[in-house]
Amino acid sequence: MSEIAEEMRRRPDRGEVATYIPELARADRQAFGLAVIDADGNLAAAGDSETPFSVQSITKVFTLTLALGKIGDRLWQRVGREPSGNPFNSIVQLELEKGVPRNPFINAGAIAVTDAILSGHEPREALGEILRFLQFLAEDSTITIDERVAASEKRTGFRNVALANFMKSYGVLDNPVDYTLGVYFHHCAVAMSCRQLAMAGRFLAHSGRNPSTGLLVISPERARRINAIMLTCGHYDGSGDFAYRVGLPGKSGVGGGILAIAPGTASIAVWSPGLDAAGNSHLGRLALERLTKRMGWSIFGE
Amino acid sequence: MSEIAEEMRRRPDRGEVATYIPELARADRQAFGLAVIDADGNLAAAGDSETPFSVQSITKVFTLTLALGKIGDRLWQRVGREPSGNPFNSIVQLELEKGVPRNPFINAGAIAVTDAILSGHEPREALGEILRFLQFLAEDSTITIDERVAASEKRTGFRNVALANFMKSYGVLDNPVDYTLGVYFHHCAVAMSCRQLAMAGRFLAHSGRNPSTGLLVISPERARRINAIMLTCGHYDGSGDFAYRVGLPGKSGVGGGILAIAPGTASIAVWSPGLDAAGNSHLGRLALERLTKRMGWSIFGE
Amino acid sequence: MSEIAEEMRRRPDRGEVATYIPELARADRQAFGLAVIDADGNLAAAGDSETPFSVQSITKVFTLTLALGKIGDRLWQRVGREPSGNPFNSIVQLELEKGVPRNPFINAGAIAVTDAILSGHEPREALGEILRFLQFLAEDSTITIDERVAASEKRTGFRNVALANFMKSYGVLDNPVDYTLGVYFHHCAVAMSCRQLAMAGRFLAHSGRNPSTGLLVISPERARRINAIMLTCGHYDGSGDFAYRVGLPGKSGVGGGILAIAPGTASIAVWSPGLDAAGNSHLGRLALERLTKRMGWSIFGE
Amino acid sequence: MSEIAEEMRRRPDRGEVATYIPELARADRQAFGLAVIDADGNLAAAGDSETPFSVQSITKVFTLTLALGKIGDRLWQRVGREPSGNPFNSIVQLELEKGVPRNPFINAGAIAVTDAILSGHEPREALGEILRFLQFLAEDSTITIDERVAASEKRTGFRNVALANFMKSYGVLDNPVDYTLGVYFHHCAVAMSCRQLAMAGRFLAHSGRNPSTGLLVISPERARRINAIMLTCGHYDGSGDFAYRVGLPGKSGVGGGILAIAPGTASIAVWSPGLDAAGNSHLGRLALERLTKRMGWSIFGE
Repeated sequence: MSEIAEEMRRRPDRGEVATYIPELARADRQAFGLAVIDADGNLAAAGDSETPFSVQSITKVFTLTLALGKIGDRLWQRVGREPSGNPFNSIVQLELEKGVPRNPFINAGAIAVTDAILSGHEPREALGEILRFLQFLAEDSTITIDERVAASEKRTGFRNVALANFMKSYGVLDNPVDYTLGVYFHHCAVAMSCRQLAMAGRFLAHSGRNPSTGLLVISPERARRINAIMLTCGHYDGSGDFAYRVGLPGKSGVGGGILAIAPGTASIAVWSPGLDAAGNSHLGRLALERLTKRMGWSIFGE
Repeated sequence: MSEIAEEMRRRPDRGEVATYIPELARADRQAFGLAVIDADGNLAAAGDSETPFSVQSITKVFTLTLALGKIGDRLWQRVGREPSGNPFNSIVQLELEKGVPRNPFINAGAIAVTDAILSGHEPREALGEILRFLQFLAEDSTITIDERVAASEKRTGFRNVALANFMKSYGVLDNPVDYTLGVYFHHCAVAMSCRQLAMAGRFLAHSGRNPSTGLLVISPERARRINAIMLTCGHYDGSGDFAYRVGLPGKSGVGGGILAIAPGTASIAVWSPGLDAAGNSHLGRLALERLTKRMGWSIFGE
Repeated sequence: MSEIAEEMRRRPDRGEVATYIPELARADRQAFGLAVIDADGNLAAAGDSETPFSVQSITKVFTLTLALGKIGDRLWQRVGREPSGNPFNSIVQLELEKGVPRNPFINAGAIAVTDAILSGHEPREALGEILRFLQFLAEDSTITIDERVAASEKRTGFRNVALANFMKSYGVLDNPVDYTLGVYFHHCAVAMSCRQLAMAGRFLAHSGRNPSTGLLVISPERARRINAIMLTCGHYDGSGDFAYRVGLPGKSGVGGGILAIAPGTASIAVWSPGLDAAGNSHLGRLALERLTKRMGWSIFGE
Repeated sequence: MSEIAEEMRRRPDRGEVATYIPELARADRQAFGLAVIDADGNLAAAGDSETPFSVQSITKVFTLTLALGKIGDRLWQRVGREPSGNPFNSIVQLELEKGVPRNPFINAGAIAVTDAILSGHEPREALGEILRFLQFLAEDSTITIDERVAASEKRTGFRNVALANFMKSYGVLDNPVDYTLGVYFHHCAVAMSCRQLAMAGRFLAHSGRNPSTGLLVISPERARRINAIMLTCGHYDGSGDFAYRVGLPGKSGVGGGILAIAPGTASIAVWSPGLDAAGNSHLGRLALERLTKRMGWSIFGE
């Protein structure tokens, strides 16, 4: 692991830091962190594994889990589960499909999921619930929202405002657009370290169960299915390539983080702010490719 | 297994038989077959597992394997590996992406792969090579092409002629369109039984190796990667749903067959001609869902 | 003319009243009005020609005129002048063309034009300027904005909010989205009668000149060019059909009004709230077809 | 006129000669011809007005006329009359609209029109009929097909083969694809001079009547309507711009010719092989802009 971290530190190709959210543009391109937690709860970490970063779209995994827990399979009436085959914030497919987003991991889909969580509550309550869920999963009450990032997204997130209003015009959102977007912009702005993120992902590696407490977060079947959606849809228009190269369910964020799951074996988080053309962490993906190959963790065979 | 076969036989919901190729419309909607071959070569079969059917798009797995063996990763210059997010014969995406098909399992992609296999040879030779490869994998020299199906496809395959000419206009095909399409229409018309198909798929379940002879068909890494593409792209616009429900790499054909791979464990073939709305075998998918759940074979966790 | 009005009154086929703006759904499907003003200022009118109705998109003709007067041909950097070939509120084309609307008569284009008028002013001032321009053209200071319609559009215009934010994300709008949309929703809610509308359109029939005062509103070349855009783009995805059947430049609104121009001859306004499938007044188009045929006014020959 | 021709000869900006049909790439970029025929049959000509060039898409005007004469308004069941809003050989819109082309002047539409003319005849007969119709309109039996151009198109017209097969897959074409395309490739390869073309277009300027013989080619209404389609759809994705700048119905071809109609006044043909970005003759459009402005011929007002 430290070998991989070392290689990553030395590589000159680091991708480009996301600039469309001004606050994210400040990220340190040299940063690299990696954390792996196995079934027995052992942590292996390297690099900047304790530095909090903006998890961005990675929270979509946890809001999906929460929404499925709240309204169950009715969620699939307002969001699909097919790969999108278009860049992550595309509005074209949304029009062709009458406002129903293709999957919960593109922005439109995650907004629809947020709307389902919000249903009937104040934005503040919904946001509190999401944050407490993350703290509970990571067993760490210090996880917070970076208000500057949230404000930055709100100020510049015209594309997301467009997506939400577009879905609203098709009747796909129940709550006032401002409420849903308020919660969405904030939960994308959660800051977590690699260690915290790997902790939070454990239930997906262990059939829905928190391996340390033994508590069931969700049913085994649902955990498998979330993993399946991560594999087919977790990396926007680079999902096929991630499956091809890494061979693990994973979810990336434009902050440069990736959460990856080796079912039955480990929860893995990696972070490096430089992104590739598809908007996924360049070195993060590369590190995971090295790691799964070395460990024989690919779900597609040894 | 016979239990699953029995349940499938009794279900009234059987989907619709493909009609766009006249010969396929003759298929018996009541047919159902299942064959599973484990790492030790044991065969478990049920129903019409010995009846040959038109494998159609399932050959795309084997032509992909063959083309990768011939020209290696250069293949990825003329075909992508991202899910398509559009119905299987869509020409829209092909225009947006300048004639480069999204993946080798949509028709356009498979035509591009066929063109790569054909390169520099007579259609007859290329077709012979594909057929011998299937016979070698299945250890069965009786596998043949159903000439009536091939003729039927050639007579009515206007959409595929359009796709091929469209790619040709972008310079993506090297050979005369008629040559490439001739080979394509014929290899889609190969007839195989569930048993033969499960036999042919063994190398994908066992790190590229034929488990009975021990011979390496392709490298372990390539086997994993083909499995990854099967998972993300193997069921057209129903790939996400198949991953979600079944949790195995698989490839379907409009003849009603599905080849599924449980990495390290088993090669599985199922057949039932009735198709669902996405063009995949309705009972075939259902049977695989039952089977993987019962056996705990999902690659996404127990 | 009264003959045409009479025929229209009797016809059972009346199209459907627009319902997406709740206030518009209240319109009387039986209403029909027609007003024609010739070069000498003679008014011929029939039916409900004095009843004010919501002009909706017809104001786009006047805001285009105003914007061209303000910033000239620089306007064409932020909006095109090609027919859209897609329903009037389509966002697909907007994405393919990086936020630059195809023409000033689709909603997105009219929002961009409104943004150009607003530039550097308070919404209230810009709105006042538009209203005064309409009053000046129609020589009628009683023209006002229907506040209930404006409020209704603001409350339900999610699609337009989506379009505006989408353009903003591409940097096509200069002003705060709320400002631009506020002006847009209000100027679409102007209420005018057929007579007032025909009065306001005179300058387009007479080389940019108000025929009664002799004052030049815009240059002759610009008047011709606005007519050209009305012909190619004035009826959304029914523009080709309108040119084919009526043969005059025209602009329709979902309130059921149409302004049509017989260059050198007459300014014509017609109103009937029932719309056809393309969102244009059903009887309005039919009445114009009868009128131009009878009068030999088609610009495409006798 | 000679003044305009002189200016055009001197201009350094000449556009790019079409290269996708190899034979067309040989055209002389310096060539420029112009011919105008008024209602009394007077010919005014300048430049290379007697040099035959490949009329290409301009024949679509005449095949449309022929097809309307043969099957009347039933033609509109297989082809629309709305501007396409996409480049001229786009297949995207064709898929969205189930194989029915948007208008008779995009390639797909002209292929559908050709299919209607062919109906029930041998390709050779249909082609003879088209050629005789052109000779009759131009009163010139020397007009012929350039066989080298036809052969060149056939050899390289993969995109058109794709379009035709695509429509065939939707059942929009009645005849064998090869027959329809054979006629299509040949009638696009007709060679005419500016003078011959202007002669052939006279009936459109004079209410469907050949002004010298007084014979009615088509009804006045149909002539008006063909002019309307030329205005809205005659210049591919540059139709709006042509209407805006020139203000006349017109049809361009990739050979660099444009036929324009001043209803009631004149039939105009211009030729210069260099094309602009939208595929229309650069100097041809410019010359027409000069001419209509000077003569006050715009149909949109003086």
